[in-house]
Amino acid sequence: MGKNVIIVGGGFAGISAAKKLAESDFNVTIVDKTNHHLFQPLLYQVATAALSPGDIAMPIRGIFTKQKNVTVVLGEVTGIDKESRRVHLKNGSNLPFHYLILAPGAQYNYFGNDSWKEHAPGLKTLSDALKIRERILFSLEKAEQIIDPAKRKPFLTYVVIGGGPTGVEMAGSIAEIAKRSMMRDFRNIKPEETQIYLVEAAGRILNGFDEPLPEKGLKTLKNMGVEVLLNLPVQEIKKNGVQVDGQFIETPNVIWGAGVKASPLIQKLGVEIDRMGRAMVEPDLSIPGDDYIFVAGDAAHVKDEDGNPLPGLAPVAMQQGKYLGNFIKNGQKPSQRKPFRYVDKGTMATIGRAKAVADIRGFKFSGFFAWLMWGLIHIFFLIGFRNRFRVFAEWIWHYITFKRGVRLIAKEEEG
Amino acid sequence: MGKNVIIVGGGFAGISAAKKLAESDFNVTIVDKTNHHLFQPLLYQVATAALSPGDIAMPIRGIFTKQKNVTVVLGEVTGIDKESRRVHLKNGSNLPFHYLILAPGAQYNYFGNDSWKEHAPGLKTLSDALKIRERILFSLEKAEQIIDPAKRKPFLTYVVIGGGPTGVEMAGSIAEIAKRSMMRDFRNIKPEETQIYLVEAAGRILNGFDEPLPEKGLKTLKNMGVEVLLNLPVQEIKKNGVQVDGQFIETPNVIWGAGVKASPLIQKLGVEIDRMGRAMVEPDLSIPGDDYIFVAGDAAHVKDEDGNPLPGLAPVAMQQGKYLGNFIKNGQKPSQRKPFRYVDKGTMATIGRAKAVADIRGFKFSGFFAWLMWGLIHIFFLIGFRNRFRVFAEWIWHYITFKRGVRLIAKEEEG
Repeated sequence: MGKNVIIVGGGFAGISAAKKLAESDFNVTIVDKTNHHLFQPLLYQVATAALSPGDIAMPIRGIFTKQKNVTVVLGEVTGIDKESRRVHLKNGSNLPFHYLILAPGAQYNYFGNDSWKEHAPGLKTLSDALKIRERILFSLEKAEQIIDPAKRKPFLTYVVIGGGPTGVEMAGSIAEIAKRSMMRDFRNIKPEETQIYLVEAAGRILNGFDEPLPEKGLKTLKNMGVEVLLNLPVQEIKKNGVQVDGQFIETPNVIWGAGVKASPLIQKLGVEIDRMGRAMVEPDLSIPGDDYIFVAGDAAHVKDEDGNPLPGLAPVAMQQGKYLGNFIKNGQKPSQRKPFRYVDKGTMATIGRAKAVADIRGFKFSGFFAWLMWGLIHIFFLIGFRNRFRVFAEWIWHYITFKRGVRLIAKEEEG
Repeated sequence: MGKNVIIVGGGFAGISAAKKLAESDFNVTIVDKTNHHLFQPLLYQVATAALSPGDIAMPIRGIFTKQKNVTVVLGEVTGIDKESRRVHLKNGSNLPFHYLILAPGAQYNYFGNDSWKEHAPGLKTLSDALKIRERILFSLEKAEQIIDPAKRKPFLTYVVIGGGPTGVEMAGSIAEIAKRSMMRDFRNIKPEETQIYLVEAAGRILNGFDEPLPEKGLKTLKNMGVEVLLNLPVQEIKKNGVQVDGQFIETPNVIWGAGVKASPLIQKLGVEIDRMGRAMVEPDLSIPGDDYIFVAGDAAHVKDEDGNPLPGLAPVAMQQGKYLGNFIKNGQKPSQRKPFRYVDKGTMATIGRAKAVADIRGFKFSGFFAWLMWGLIHIFFLIGFRNRFRVFAEWIWHYITFKRGVRLIAKEEEG
């Protein structure tokens, strides 16, 4: 009788672990709040109408169609019973486990200011991306109908908070829409009227990259018309704007990319957590005092060789998932498990059309070549031939025509 | 100074009229409640996860990017002032016109039973299609987690109401999902458990087609596992099922395709309307007593050569739009306008994978060849090379793999 492996979360860590265990003697169950695996690095492109949800999301069932030992459950975990070795779901059912991998990911951290969440959505789920897309498209439509340029300025103002890769990618993308590719479709509003701000509390953007990449990123953003405001923590976000030290930026268009924290599910484990709510795990990713419960991905605090925590990036989550899948499959006893070691193959961020920054094993690239590489690598990691083909086709189209393919507001105009 | 043509509605009639007037001396304004033109004949494929919204919808602005005399306004018309020749919008603004084309389309008619609308959505907008898609995918996920086959049966039961092309296409599509293409992804539920009903009040389906096509359609549906119930008007629709004469079908999955009525906007015109709320128009599509206000598309009651009203089909709307655009462009006086004559090039309906029925100028086709033709013609009429390519690629994928590409539930699991 096979042992039960329960994987909570169908993101990079969870899917990678499940793939290693596919077609083995283990009964694998993946539990996720949505029915799909989301390729998060490209989520900002759904938010800026360059890709469809269907291009970057794959039903988890579809990934494991042929692997009969993998079951998928659409559900939300509400509790973990370490005594009886069961996971409790919101719908009242519970699932027994021999091995439990918790990879529930992260969410946006508003540093205690939960009221900001409504005015400044983050970008973690498809639902987020579609909400942001709607807001951006709607702001252009709204501005188009206002005759007085002063009155329409707020609708043509966009504030992205957070100078990490997500914030930089969003700001660059919005600059493309609002300053270039879509403006020919409008008759009243002009590209010069739009104002995009990238607001960062620290002294520089792209903090995880080494120079000269942050400098190049900054230059590219400025050339695209994004105003980068450094050393400016956000003080207040209201429905009609953002307050930073020295000015109030009037706009309904605020996007949050400034801080993440681990899923609150981690708090139910009763283990030590860091400032971001991530579980402090052992070298084999198990939780202290339990050799058969693991945390992986953005929700885990794992130290690298220098004693620093690994960042919440896709390749980190993927490697952790594979690592766990491997030793579970090999039936290694706790004492036999080697510690997890992350192999850093490089990081990259794109900054709008045909520009990116990349650091591959110390070789630093920027500009068009980096962007090509970024594109190819992201397509490679997409799950499923169909998705790869669609995204590739969509990008070719966009590059040639400057048009963004998916500019849809699905809800009807509400006055 | 150019004259103003206002077109209310960005559907087939509106877009066709605007295209004729593009790059002319007229100032054309298209007003629509959404920002996109929707290729409605393929909407059922979005509802059954075979196509993405972006594949069949095109931003109206994007269609007229180069035609500088065409302006697009996202808005809802609340009134038409014939005296001052102005159209009033919900946001308070008003637009002056010399020519007014009203093409607001149709909506579903619940024959006075408005409470049914919540339980049995129709299929007219992207929003409808996404709601239905979510319901179908969610029902499978829900059933998968219920151990007792009797308790899960309602979730695997689907009722489509209305035996016209829309109902037939939906029923056939659901049969594909629930009986074939997706079932391999599930571990507990089996294709044999699903039950699909097509309920029709009259004595036969596909009433607008001549024999032997309805007979062939019926046979195909039965072979696909759809149970067709004829002569059974719906008596009641509740949250948990449908009451027809003789039985109560327990299910949360009910889709309405049984009756349409014109947009309520038509009632504001103060002209005679038919049972379906359509405006009784003159032979040149103008309203009685006013030579410069027109109604076209599904909202117009236009008689054919036999005195019967033309059906609410895409080619009818397209031809009417072109007709109006032409004589407006030519500046023809009312007395010079020839009456509108519809040229029937044929009708078709698809019934699932690789089967369809078609009647082209009296030549009747069915089966695989009809389906190929249906596919090619629909792709031809899609607006935009990009959309044509995407839909073509999606269908090839689907045909080869039996997989449906867009099985996404975007909202998170709600317990």
